[in-house]
Formats: sequence, C-alpha cells, structure tokens
Amino acid sequence: MNRFALALVVLPALGLSAQAQTEVPYPTEYRQWQHVKSMLIEQGHPLYEAFGGIHHIYANPLAMEGYRSGQFPDGAVIAFDLLEAERADHAVVEGVRKVLGVMHKDQAAYPETAGWGFEGFAAGDPAARVVGANAYDACFACHTSEREYDYVFSRLRE
Amino acid sequence: MNRFALALVVLPALGLSAQAQTEVPYPTEYRQWQHVKSMLIEQGHPLYEAFGGIHHIYANPLAMEGYRSGQFPDGAVIAFDLLEAERADHAVVEGVRKVLGVMHKDQAAYPETAGWGFEGFAAGDPAARVVGANAYDACFACHTSEREYDYVFSRLRE
Repeated sequence: MNRFALALVVLPALGLSAQAQTEVPYPTEYRQWQHVKSMLIEQGHPLYEAFGGIHHIYANPLAMEGYRSGQFPDGAVIAFDLLEAERADHAVVEGVRKVLGVMHKDQAAYPETAGWGFEGFAAGDPAARVVGANAYDACFACHTSEREYDYVFSRLRE
Repeated sequence: MNRFALALVVLPALGLSAQAQTEVPYPTEYRQWQHVKSMLIEQGHPLYEAFGGIHHIYANPLAMEGYRSGQFPDGAVIAFDLLEAERADHAVVEGVRKVLGVMHKDQAAYPETAGWGFEGFAAGDPAARVVGANAYDACFACHTSEREYDYVFSRLRE
C-alpha cells in the first residue's frame, strides 16, 4: 500500500479527512462585544512576526460564559483584533488593522481542532482569509498548550 | 467691598457657585460597554504622572451616539479605564487598575463644565473619589481644547 492509499484509509479513521471544513463565519458585530483584555507585542518578542502590534480580545455573550465556566459552548466566538502599534512622543497609539483572528466553537463543524474553528482576516477584510485549511498547524498546534482552558490563551480580567 | 463679599456677588452670576455639585454616578456596567480605543502612555510623556499606563475608553449607548453625531446627549457616559502597564520580554501586559475616569453628560447638573460631570475613582473603587469639586481645574480646563468635539478627546475608530 503506497503512502497515498494509506492516507486514504488512516486519515479518515483519525478524523483527519482532507475534506473542506466549514468556513469560520466573519464576526460582523465583534466591535460591540465585550472587551476582554489587551496586550502589546514588540520587536524581539518570539511572536512578533505573526502578532506584533497591539491586540484586543473581544468575546460574544456565549464566549463570556466560557471564560467564566472554563468550557466554551457551541456558538462562542472570540475575536483577536490586531492593530499596528505606532510609537511617538513616549506613547503608543493604535494604527491600522493588521489582522482579525477568530475562534468559533462548533463541535460538529471542527472536530479536528477540538471543536474550535480558527480563521484570520487580513486587515479585517471578510474576503481575505489567511488560515483556511491550515488551522491545525497555523493555530491549533500552539493552542494545545491551553487545553485546560479549553484551548483559549486569554483570561477574563475585571 | 472686600474680595470675599465680591465673590458672593459675582461668582453666582457667572454660574461659579460654591454649592456642592451632583456627584457623578459610578458606572457599574462600563466593562460591558463598547470599547472605543486604547493608548499606552510611557515615562517621558507630559501626561505620564497623571495617566501613565495603558488606558481603554468605553462608551455607553448614548455616548456612542455622541461619538457619531459630535454632540453627546444627556445620559452619555464615557469611561477612561487606566491600568498599570507591565513590561516584560518585549511585551506590555495589563496590570492593576490605577484609576477609572468618568465623563457623564447632564446639562442641568454640570452647567459649570459644559454639561459634563467629571470624576475619578482610585483603583476603580466606587468609594474613592479623587476629583470631587475640582472638576473644573483638574479635568475641564484641559478638555476645553476639544470644544469642537463636545470636550471629548477620544475619537471612535472602526
């Protein structure tokens, strides 16, 4: 059995099918959701290339339930809104949007990534998807470190 | 007429009475309001002593109307939430709350400061008011520079 044939047999058994996953919906209302927390990532940080700038985390009402209970229900959506950080006169202000990252919980739609759909929208453009079928490697692999928090890095603060 | 007597006559005529103003209510729900924008102020900035740290601006629904129209209606409330900025490993994260600043529009209650009540709550404590009767000097004097924006410094961004 060659490798390709083996994959045809084994991958579906692992739930790692090559079929197109459900597209993560663009979260049209996220700017009205609750602001969870923010962080500034600067040059020299290991995640600077991917996430340099100032980011804000927003949560829809179901995601707020998840932050409080530790388990995010289906329909929970978390937005990671990354803006350029512009430094001037001993201050850092927000610049243009670099990317809008999204985690969308739907157990049936995203079984390969623990029920989370991951997507990124370049410059916040709903048509400019930057993750697509690469969610496992591009997003989920790092998020596995947060398994005890249902794969979410951010924590709710007061 | 001595100065004190003069003040008794002139100040009320200017609307600068010494009577106690209406206390600005503590905005209990502000963490659920819309996040308007954020900024980091660092050592060396002229406002560092007062406002050093990372601050987030939140607006209640009436204040959102004001950002859009340029004129804030009575009942509009803007929260200025100032947190310590903690620097580590080429990143800045949020620390404890330094002060929660509030602007509350009520034309009848705050005629001396263009209809805006100003207050600050140390560490976000509803009982720790730091502005009180000093709103004109401590807050409004600087906000007059923004008269064309109804005395509000922040602008709504997408």
